[in-house]
Amino acid sequence: MKHDAVWLNLRLCAGGDVDDTLDDAAIAVEAGQIAWLGARAELPARFAALPRHDLAGRWVTPGLIDCHTHLVYGGQRADEFALRLAGASYEDIARAGGGIVSSVRATRAASEDELFAQAAGRLKPLLAEGVCAIEIKSGYGLDLASEAKMLRVARRLGQAYDLTVRTTFLGAHALPPEYAGRADDYIELVCSDMLPALAAEGLVDAVDVFCEKIGFSLAQTERVFAAAQALGLPVKVHSEQLSNLGGTALAARYQALSADHLEFLDEAGVIAMREAGTVAVLLPGAYYFIRETQLPPMALLRQHGVPMAIATDSNPGTSPATSLLLMLNMACTLFRLTVREALLGVTQHAARALGLQATHGQLAVGRRADFVAWDVTTLAELAYWLGRNPAYQIVRGGLIQPESKPA
Amino acid sequence: MKHDAVWLNLRLCAGGDVDDTLDDAAIAVEAGQIAWLGARAELPARFAALPRHDLAGRWVTPGLIDCHTHLVYGGQRADEFALRLAGASYEDIARAGGGIVSSVRATRAASEDELFAQAAGRLKPLLAEGVCAIEIKSGYGLDLASEAKMLRVARRLGQAYDLTVRTTFLGAHALPPEYAGRADDYIELVCSDMLPALAAEGLVDAVDVFCEKIGFSLAQTERVFAAAQALGLPVKVHSEQLSNLGGTALAARYQALSADHLEFLDEAGVIAMREAGTVAVLLPGAYYFIRETQLPPMALLRQHGVPMAIATDSNPGTSPATSLLLMLNMACTLFRLTVREALLGVTQHAARALGLQATHGQLAVGRRADFVAWDVTTLAELAYWLGRNPAYQIVRGGLIQPESKPA
Ligand SMILES: [Zn+2]
Ligand SMILES: [Zn+2]
Repeated sequence: MKHDAVWLNLRLCAGGDVDDTLDDAAIAVEAGQIAWLGARAELPARFAALPRHDLAGRWVTPGLIDCHTHLVYGGQRADEFALRLAGASYEDIARAGGGIVSSVRATRAASEDELFAQAAGRLKPLLAEGVCAIEIKSGYGLDLASEAKMLRVARRLGQAYDLTVRTTFLGAHALPPEYAGRADDYIELVCSDMLPALAAEGLVDAVDVFCEKIGFSLAQTERVFAAAQALGLPVKVHSEQLSNLGGTALAARYQALSADHLEFLDEAGVIAMREAGTVAVLLPGAYYFIRETQLPPMALLRQHGVPMAIATDSNPGTSPATSLLLMLNMACTLFRLTVREALLGVTQHAARALGLQATHGQLAVGRRADFVAWDVTTLAELAYWLGRNPAYQIVRGGLIQPESKPA
Repeated sequence: MKHDAVWLNLRLCAGGDVDDTLDDAAIAVEAGQIAWLGARAELPARFAALPRHDLAGRWVTPGLIDCHTHLVYGGQRADEFALRLAGASYEDIARAGGGIVSSVRATRAASEDELFAQAAGRLKPLLAEGVCAIEIKSGYGLDLASEAKMLRVARRLGQAYDLTVRTTFLGAHALPPEYAGRADDYIELVCSDMLPALAAEGLVDAVDVFCEKIGFSLAQTERVFAAAQALGLPVKVHSEQLSNLGGTALAARYQALSADHLEFLDEAGVIAMREAGTVAVLLPGAYYFIRETQLPPMALLRQHGVPMAIATDSNPGTSPATSLLLMLNMACTLFRLTVREALLGVTQHAARALGLQATHGQLAVGRRADFVAWDVTTLAELAYWLGRNPAYQIVRGGLIQPESKPA
């Protein structure tokens, strides 16, 4: 294939583990996959004729993975942010038509092309940082047509940017205004109508629920999980963000890919995750933006060996984040993750949170050739800078992407 | 002059005050300065023949000003950041050669060209966000030759990027290792040797001191201020960051341009600032990065009408920040500044913190034509996003800069 090539003169961190690296390495790519990687001196002769890219000693990591985003939505909520800083109460905001309802309204009103253009504007800074795979949730449509529109936009983003996109149906994100006071009826619609239809269209890679006092109850959450299970779809959960409701343990009983947020998670929940192989997705942008003070139980997660991922939670209300590198810094600064944990959290562990561990998150023969060469002296710089993007060259599916810096 | 032009079809926030804007405005630029601005319909006929740039209704603000940075230094301290997260104590770090001493060592060892290249790498993301004027401090050289080298690099950055650079001599930043135990002798060197020599070379626009228990005492600070005053140079101060030592009130007695950090400032200090016309420069990146919990006295600063500026404090040890927009978000999220205060803090008030209020920080006839057109629906977006740069076109000195997005 014409894009086959060899990258050499690089320092390789193939697994996203900063403690496991190889100097003077080479990577051979064929048909968009890693065909070989290892010490440059051992590069097999059969790759000798391929075009060569000299990385001048730069560090190379797996492409980054943002495993929890709400990237597709209409509008933004900056004026609401300003109003709140100027002293407006939540009631004032609600009376002015703000809050999640305003995002639902804007998302429903937007055409598919408008949604695509807006989401692409938020995706580009992530791509420029070396994000090569991303999860995108629905959940601002809250009716079948609008949820389908969001998920189609997510799929289109993947095609347009040669990017791995995993779609997650989050119909159970909030109660749409037309179902006020009838949450059980809405959950029935989600389970019996929306989910089967969207799954039949091939728009659903996983199913998520916002399990919280201000979201959906444990019983409602379980109904959605059961509907997903019946369709053979994996589940995820927004849980223990604002209180310890038990959504994480419930999700673990359904072998959830991940449980996300987790500020109020207790040890029983941590043990349930470990036994189910559920990944803990930490979202420091939301923690920062809503000025939460309750930290996720990092010590317990470590002690029980639950893998920790880090994501942007990119969304208009509680984490208007379009930088995964900033989330690395926040995970370290605010949650005291080590740099090693932070980088594993956006490579290996993030892949696992999406069920992509066989193809993504590590560089190895047969895996997708998604990698990033960085203009850094040490990989710790990826978590250290505030607002600096040291990506030098970005390769997705074996192709050097236009987000890369000019050589 | 061949670069004279008119910008039109724009929404103008000429003073950096989001509550004072003009729809359907135009700006005429001649010889790098604002020749006229106002309602497009009233554009004088004499500008009709100039080239026209249609901004398609975009918002335009004054160019941003980063009024407190330590942008020029050798190396970075990412490995120290990683070590600390992995549990190393300050003593461990010091024993491993870390801390500010390592930045001094790297800065002294770097050639002027190396320092320039490293600083330019940190400057570019700021320029891309619309920073059109920046303060750069010395303080990692701590000997005459190295401080001169830093300040020459700062001047060269201004020339290379057609950027307004204000240099600040911060010889009294830390005690150089060779003066251990002899702080007064070092201050004598700063006042009698370094400052006069650097001022004579035209390298000093202002003089700053790190007045803190771990920095220099009030008496030492005053010696430096007196030496600056004798040379007719304005002063600034790093004060009340970690304790209430009184550096702010002292600086006010010397009519300081600004007092910076201020987490532990009391009301007497606030009143002293008001009376001296000293700007309060808030540095939320450092507050965030060192996990400070003591907030600056915003309510008192507001109550007494002290202008607040916001800056990156870009430095390797306590604020490795290269995004001024992120600082806007942190000023709002962490310090609860309003969006209006935040934008004034990087335009009008930042100009005043540098003594540039006559030429920078506002768009008005006769001022330098530094402005930014933004891809935003509302100016609140400048403080709202985490890691997104919505700058569309950047004009410095009347010229459209290459950091602008392609049209
Ligand atoms: Zn979420
Ligand atoms: Zn400083």
